[in-house]
Amino acid sequence: MNVTVLRMGHRHERDKRITTHCALVARAFGAKKIILSGEKDDSVLKSVAEAALRWGGNFEVEYREDWKSVLKNFKGLKAHLTMYGEKIKPAQFKKTKNVLVVIGAEKVPAEVYKLCDFNIAIGSQPHSEVAALTVFLLKILGEKPLWEKKRNAKLKIIPQRNSKKVVTKL
Amino acid sequence: MNVTVLRMGHRHERDKRITTHCALVARAFGAKKIILSGEKDDSVLKSVAEAALRWGGNFEVEYREDWKSVLKNFKGLKAHLTMYGEKIKPAQFKKTKNVLVVIGAEKVPAEVYKLCDFNIAIGSQPHSEVAALTVFLLKILGEKPLWEKKRNAKLKIIPQRNSKKVVTKL
Repeated sequence: MNVTVLRMGHRHERDKRITTHCALVARAFGAKKIILSGEKDDSVLKSVAEAALRWGGNFEVEYREDWKSVLKNFKGLKAHLTMYGEKIKPAQFKKTKNVLVVIGAEKVPAEVYKLCDFNIAIGSQPHSEVAALTVFLLKILGEKPLWEKKRNAKLKIIPQRNSKKVVTKL
Repeated sequence: MNVTVLRMGHRHERDKRITTHCALVARAFGAKKIILSGEKDDSVLKSVAEAALRWGGNFEVEYREDWKSVLKNFKGLKAHLTMYGEKIKPAQFKKTKNVLVVIGAEKVPAEVYKLCDFNIAIGSQPHSEVAALTVFLLKILGEKPLWEKKRNAKLKIIPQRNSKKVVTKL
C-alpha cells in the first residue's frame, strides 16, 4: 500500500516543529511521501529532506500551494483525520493501493470534510495531529515499517539497553 | 495501572507546542498526570490545565524543576523512550501498578538512561516524542481510554461522518 500524507495549513514559525514531527512520523511509520501545504517553509522542507537522506529509504517531501487540486486529483482513498470524525475501521483500507491521509493545523476548511472518503477520529478528545497520524499509520501499515532496514542509510542505530550506539557509513 | 509522564528539558518558545501536544496525548491516551521539567512555562501549564477542565476527567499537570528527584523517588517502573533503546515488551509492564514514562526534548542527560528500568525505542528511526508516547501508551493501556466518557466534561464530541458536532454543557 502506498500512503501519502497531506499536511495542510502550515504556518511559518508556529507550526515549524509540529510539521517536522508529522513528516518524520510519516517516514518512520511507513508512508512514502508527505505533501506540505499552507505557508511555504523551506527550512522544514530542507530539514525533512536531509533527515530522509541521512537515515535512508525513499521518502519524498514536496510543497504544493493548491491543496484542493491534490485532494481532487488523488486516485485512491482519502482519509481526513479529525477528532470530530468516526472511529476507524481498518478493513476499509484493506484492498486499497493508494491512500491519502489528510492532517490539518488549527482549522481545516469545511470542504475537506466533504472531499475526503472518510473523516476519522482517533478518539473524540483533543490531542495531536502527530499522534493521530501515528495511530492511523500503525493501524493500516502495522509495525513492520518501524523496524525495516532503510536502503542507503548513512546512519544506523543499534538498539542498546542503556546507552547509545550509532553506526555511521561514510 | 497509573501512568505518569515526565516531560524533560522543556525550552520556552521552541518546545511550547510539542510539549502541549505531549500533555494532550498523555491525557487522551490514558495517563493520569504529566510532570513538566526544564524551563518553567506557565502558558503551557495553563493551557493544558484548561483543556483538562473543559474536556473532563481527572488529568493533572505539574511543574518540577528537579527531574532527578522525580526519577529517584518514583515507586514503580520507569521507562525512558528513546530511539536508541530496545524494542518494547508490553508483558514487562503487566503486573505493575505505577509506571513513569520519560520523554525528552532535544538531548537527554546520560544519567536518565541509567536511572530508568527500561530504555525503549519505538522504532530505531528519528521521529517524534509525541509519537513515541502515543505508541507506548497504546501498548500498555490499550485503546479504551481514547473512547472513555470523561467525568465533568463541559464539551463532548458526537462522532459524525462528515461534519462537526460538539455538545456544550453549561
